[in-house]
Amino acid sequence: MTDRRRIYLDGNSLGPPAPGTAEALRTLVEQWDDELIGGWNAGWWDLPVAVGERIAPLLGAGPGQVVVGDSTTVLWFKLVSAALRLRPRRQTIVTPTGGFPTDRHVIDALGAPVTAVAADDLVDALGADTAVLALSHVDYRSGRRLDLAAVTAAAHEAGAVVVWDLSHSVGAMDLHLDAADVDLAVGCTYKYLNGGPGSPAFAYVAERHLPSFDQPIPGWVGHADPFSMSEVHVPAPGIRRVLSGTPSILALAALAVALDRFDGVDLGALRAHSVALTDRCLALADEMGLDTVTPRGPEHRGSHVALRHPHAWAVVRACVDAGVVGDHRPPDLIRFGVAPSHLTLDDVDEAMTRLAHILETGSWERWTDARRPTVT
Amino acid sequence: MTDRRRIYLDGNSLGPPAPGTAEALRTLVEQWDDELIGGWNAGWWDLPVAVGERIAPLLGAGPGQVVVGDSTTVLWFKLVSAALRLRPRRQTIVTPTGGFPTDRHVIDALGAPVTAVAADDLVDALGADTAVLALSHVDYRSGRRLDLAAVTAAAHEAGAVVVWDLSHSVGAMDLHLDAADVDLAVGCTYKYLNGGPGSPAFAYVAERHLPSFDQPIPGWVGHADPFSMSEVHVPAPGIRRVLSGTPSILALAALAVALDRFDGVDLGALRAHSVALTDRCLALADEMGLDTVTPRGPEHRGSHVALRHPHAWAVVRACVDAGVVGDHRPPDLIRFGVAPSHLTLDDVDEAMTRLAHILETGSWERWTDARRPTVT
Repeated sequence: MTDRRRIYLDGNSLGPPAPGTAEALRTLVEQWDDELIGGWNAGWWDLPVAVGERIAPLLGAGPGQVVVGDSTTVLWFKLVSAALRLRPRRQTIVTPTGGFPTDRHVIDALGAPVTAVAADDLVDALGADTAVLALSHVDYRSGRRLDLAAVTAAAHEAGAVVVWDLSHSVGAMDLHLDAADVDLAVGCTYKYLNGGPGSPAFAYVAERHLPSFDQPIPGWVGHADPFSMSEVHVPAPGIRRVLSGTPSILALAALAVALDRFDGVDLGALRAHSVALTDRCLALADEMGLDTVTPRGPEHRGSHVALRHPHAWAVVRACVDAGVVGDHRPPDLIRFGVAPSHLTLDDVDEAMTRLAHILETGSWERWTDARRPTVT
Repeated sequence: MTDRRRIYLDGNSLGPPAPGTAEALRTLVEQWDDELIGGWNAGWWDLPVAVGERIAPLLGAGPGQVVVGDSTTVLWFKLVSAALRLRPRRQTIVTPTGGFPTDRHVIDALGAPVTAVAADDLVDALGADTAVLALSHVDYRSGRRLDLAAVTAAAHEAGAVVVWDLSHSVGAMDLHLDAADVDLAVGCTYKYLNGGPGSPAFAYVAERHLPSFDQPIPGWVGHADPFSMSEVHVPAPGIRRVLSGTPSILALAALAVALDRFDGVDLGALRAHSVALTDRCLALADEMGLDTVTPRGPEHRGSHVALRHPHAWAVVRACVDAGVVGDHRPPDLIRFGVAPSHLTLDDVDEAMTRLAHILETGSWERWTDARRPTVT
């Protein structure tokens, strides 16, 4: 292998920085130095909604329904809680087993009855007491993608509200939340959207739910008249009511730069490229005789693939050493994310060539199989 | 007035940037570009605790009790909720009327009985059913400072847990949380700590409470074994259990630079300087015949002063126009914050000279009294 360029197949965990990020941050620090408190009246106050409006087209969402602020976990907590309040006569939350752990931790902590079943059994598990169906669109391990419109329709047929976690979807495919009549959704911005480590998450609340949307952390940033300093919380009439405290303006500024990459992007073409990349990845894995966990039908697949290997951790370490940065998911999955916004078929070919070499030579064996921290 | 330099008396709302902030952010973006996901193993993962450890000395807190992440509102929600769980046989939250609105909004939303009384009546309001006393150390409007040790002792005598909001204290005075046997505290980092607009807040949990500290938003970042991807949440043994989702690393990096200013600072001397500044401000306000709302005894005072004027908003606008950036709090307060880390007695003299000129000439009258957004 003479081509030793790094091939980054972990953009589904943390996307790379956009050009101009450091400059945008310098400009923001200069504004902070120059305008001080006045910066709040010069754009900062509106930034959570303004950045949300730029994410909205990536979700297939009309205006006034997307806002950015807090971590994905905190927004998930707020939205699942709010979903329960939208169905006060029902109690149960239905959610898949094996979903992203944080999503489940939050659900379990809410105190409502939880019905956790395999993804294939979700629709059958919906019943007269189901208040909320809460789930990921694309599974963080297998890469399996659910049919967002069909599952949403099934939830509605059962009288439930659905909350989607789009962390492993947004920025890698076309989404159609409004058309699918989705109720609520959250998503991460540091994966395919490349917002930076720990960049704030987004929340989508369908317009029809906004008047009755009631979340458990009312704060002054989501107040209808925040500068009245009233002790009585009156939620802002629109999407701002999702917000609680003051969001990081530095983090929002970096995210705004990252979103430039997506301005005017043809999401159908982006999705087609993603499918071509995962197709190639799976085909080459087949040639190596690897057990591929990711579903074969493109419509059932997100933008990462999972390959099973009993020594997955060691193989991933050997890959990193060979310039192919992927990820390991315990116990036995190699996970390669193929971010369609910046990867090519050549990248996938080269990465899989290096993986094949590692497997053929057994060079992974020098990595002990101890578990080491990696980040989703 | 020939001296037209800007005098910033709103550092209690948003402190100015530290030198080197833009450079630190550039370095971080370079690290992100270079190490990508590997950055998490090169310091990012530990940053919320590492930055917390740098704030700890400013609180009079020993190691392992302070962490940074989320907004002040979200951390306040977590800590007041956790405080209720520390006293499961009691129900009531006691809190002052007229406190910071967000603090009250969160308390009212928790569903527990709330007893809200004037600050002077707080101790008398504590009873056998009081689970939590939740309050600000320094009032955001009047600048009145409560006796942290005495109030904490009174709460403990009544069997309650106390949660302090130190937003208007930290970075402007010496604090002694460990010595005062404080239970829980939160505070803002974008005021006197100068962390930047919306920089993440800190939480203090006394070591004795950590094993039973149970907060309502369990997330993977606060998991004892986050990379096991277990669906069962096991809280981290130490202060990390306060965390939920991934915090903004850019925001933490900026805050880390801002804290350089406080390394090795003599907090007693900082406090003495703050008292000298507010003393001077109040004395000059007396000379102008202004009604001073802030208490006279230095021990009862934070680091800002509030002056009453029926046209406070217009006067503050005229001050800004004259290069004196203060703030207005409805309905009738002029609020001048005197951040002791970067203001001098000369600054206060010059600012008050300009204010006197504005009041003598009536130049404020050209500002209409319409309410405009300003940020706390």
